[in-house]
Amino acid sequence: MLTVQTDKHKLRDAKTELHGGQLVPPFECPARVDRILERAKAVKLGEFREPDDFGLDPVRRIHDAKFLDFLSTCWDEWQAAGFKGEAIPTGWPARRMQTRCPEFIDGKLGYYSLAAETAISNGTWEAAKASANVALTAQAEIAKGASSAFALCRPPGHHATSDMYGGYCFINNAAVAAQAFLDQGASRVAILDVDFHHGNGTQDIFYGRDDVFFQSLHGEPQHAFPYFLGYADELGKEKGEGFTANYPLPPGTDFASWGDAMTAAIKRIHDYGPDAVVISLGVDTYKDDPISFFKLESDDYKTYGAMIADLKRPTLFVMEGGYAVEEIGINAVNVLMGFEDK
Amino acid sequence: MLTVQTDKHKLRDAKTELHGGQLVPPFECPARVDRILERAKAVKLGEFREPDDFGLDPVRRIHDAKFLDFLSTCWDEWQAAGFKGEAIPTGWPARRMQTRCPEFIDGKLGYYSLAAETAISNGTWEAAKASANVALTAQAEIAKGASSAFALCRPPGHHATSDMYGGYCFINNAAVAAQAFLDQGASRVAILDVDFHHGNGTQDIFYGRDDVFFQSLHGEPQHAFPYFLGYADELGKEKGEGFTANYPLPPGTDFASWGDAMTAAIKRIHDYGPDAVVISLGVDTYKDDPISFFKLESDDYKTYGAMIADLKRPTLFVMEGGYAVEEIGINAVNVLMGFEDK
Repeated sequence: MLTVQTDKHKLRDAKTELHGGQLVPPFECPARVDRILERAKAVKLGEFREPDDFGLDPVRRIHDAKFLDFLSTCWDEWQAAGFKGEAIPTGWPARRMQTRCPEFIDGKLGYYSLAAETAISNGTWEAAKASANVALTAQAEIAKGASSAFALCRPPGHHATSDMYGGYCFINNAAVAAQAFLDQGASRVAILDVDFHHGNGTQDIFYGRDDVFFQSLHGEPQHAFPYFLGYADELGKEKGEGFTANYPLPPGTDFASWGDAMTAAIKRIHDYGPDAVVISLGVDTYKDDPISFFKLESDDYKTYGAMIADLKRPTLFVMEGGYAVEEIGINAVNVLMGFEDK
Repeated sequence: MLTVQTDKHKLRDAKTELHGGQLVPPFECPARVDRILERAKAVKLGEFREPDDFGLDPVRRIHDAKFLDFLSTCWDEWQAAGFKGEAIPTGWPARRMQTRCPEFIDGKLGYYSLAAETAISNGTWEAAKASANVALTAQAEIAKGASSAFALCRPPGHHATSDMYGGYCFINNAAVAAQAFLDQGASRVAILDVDFHHGNGTQDIFYGRDDVFFQSLHGEPQHAFPYFLGYADELGKEKGEGFTANYPLPPGTDFASWGDAMTAAIKRIHDYGPDAVVISLGVDTYKDDPISFFKLESDDYKTYGAMIADLKRPTLFVMEGGYAVEEIGINAVNVLMGFEDK
């Protein structure tokens, strides 16, 4: 399987994450990609290539122009305001408040974010654009005939909505790639989000549409970030009704239970018959992940990679989360090896 | 003028505030009350007394029971979850997300907050209850016949809504006191919020009601916290239409401009003819306040205290913000001295 990646992900190198009331080194760190790349090369997964530059047009198909402008100028505005730390929001449009965007950067951060753990710093925007190009390059390979490809995206994307960042995500790489399939002639795309966290951004983007079938397996929102989306009764709206499916799972879920949900999700994709499948691949379902509560073992990743392969559809893997850095390479690549039956 | 105060405010002693991407010592600190009390005693403002304990019934008249339960258990739940810092939210119900309250404390914090600068720590709840008792005790003195009283509240209250904390505020002391006037027979109460920051919580609480006339002079929300409320076109809703008035003012506003807005607000209270006036007294309008952008001088506080006195209405002063700690005593007490024509 082809892997698309770029060292530009290293430009995303925030020093702080708000976690447990402290500013700690971010769980979402450059070493994550290093470990995955090492492992992919060690097992000779396939070819490796740098991304092409698609510009912002395909990104604008998913994200609001003003939101992208904000991402591109945020760090400069934050520094100009004289703040000393990395850019973290302190207030947001809460219940019954205005939804007008303020002019001052501290307020704009709150307007365009859905979480405060994700600090914006120098290089964040450049890395986010490069990550989208990684997804788009891998997508293009499939459009050209490859049966599968691995977009080793970083920063991840599935929490980002059309107009909000958070949860380590800025541009929704999976959504941008799914839209590219459609714009190039596909009539239906299935996105399956196997990251531990609900893919709230992806769901939100496609919630009213019937050309993308979004499913997510994740920690119950009552107990897990992003807390405010991912319930089983969220099924889509208007013409999108029935094109969203969620499988919230409780703390301690092991592969026996997780695999049952996966079997159900896979069957629904099979019945849907998509032109392409996009896997939002997070491996923070792993038993030792530091910020998650599922109990998958490393071999389980091979098992479910094979389940995805059984769909026999053009399949784009887009890297999302996974924070057990030492095992992230084995687990992520196990999915791809399982898919390829290696 | 009687001053009501208690040392229990010192129980609110958070060590961290999220500001400019850093965790800094909170601007809202115990020394603020110490300086005001010293100054009030130095000028022999009047009697000083401890608050009575009114219990939570008058607080429940304003705040949701589940929100108060949350405040009372938050710190214990946060510690039980193993977090090492003070309690700060990381995610919240952003646009198009669910408004269901999660079960895990990290998610509950986001549900019940409107800002992330305000860390909850040991003693916060006890201090917040004591602060409400300070306001209620001063209100009771006026109900018994005093023409004015000073509730030296800390923590402040005007950013707290019925179901959200933030901006250093937990219980909305001014709203609780205004409701007490009504519950004891008053038919109309005017609240005038002269804090630099918009009194979003108080506005939100009374937005649909015609028995409380709320006005606020404050930094424009485009540029100043809380960013998402306080526009001039917010006038109340339903039967509350016309019972809210906002005077957003730009960076650099001096007393010449501020005083014009104050004159307009005072005139409207005069025309309204309330049974009681509650002043949300913040002195962060001061030229050297570290987190605000108005340019009032210390003498200006006497001037506007006299303007309030001209209303000749029973007047309850409820302390809100002010972060130029060395001058907070002079400025706050100047308002009260101006009121008393001392």
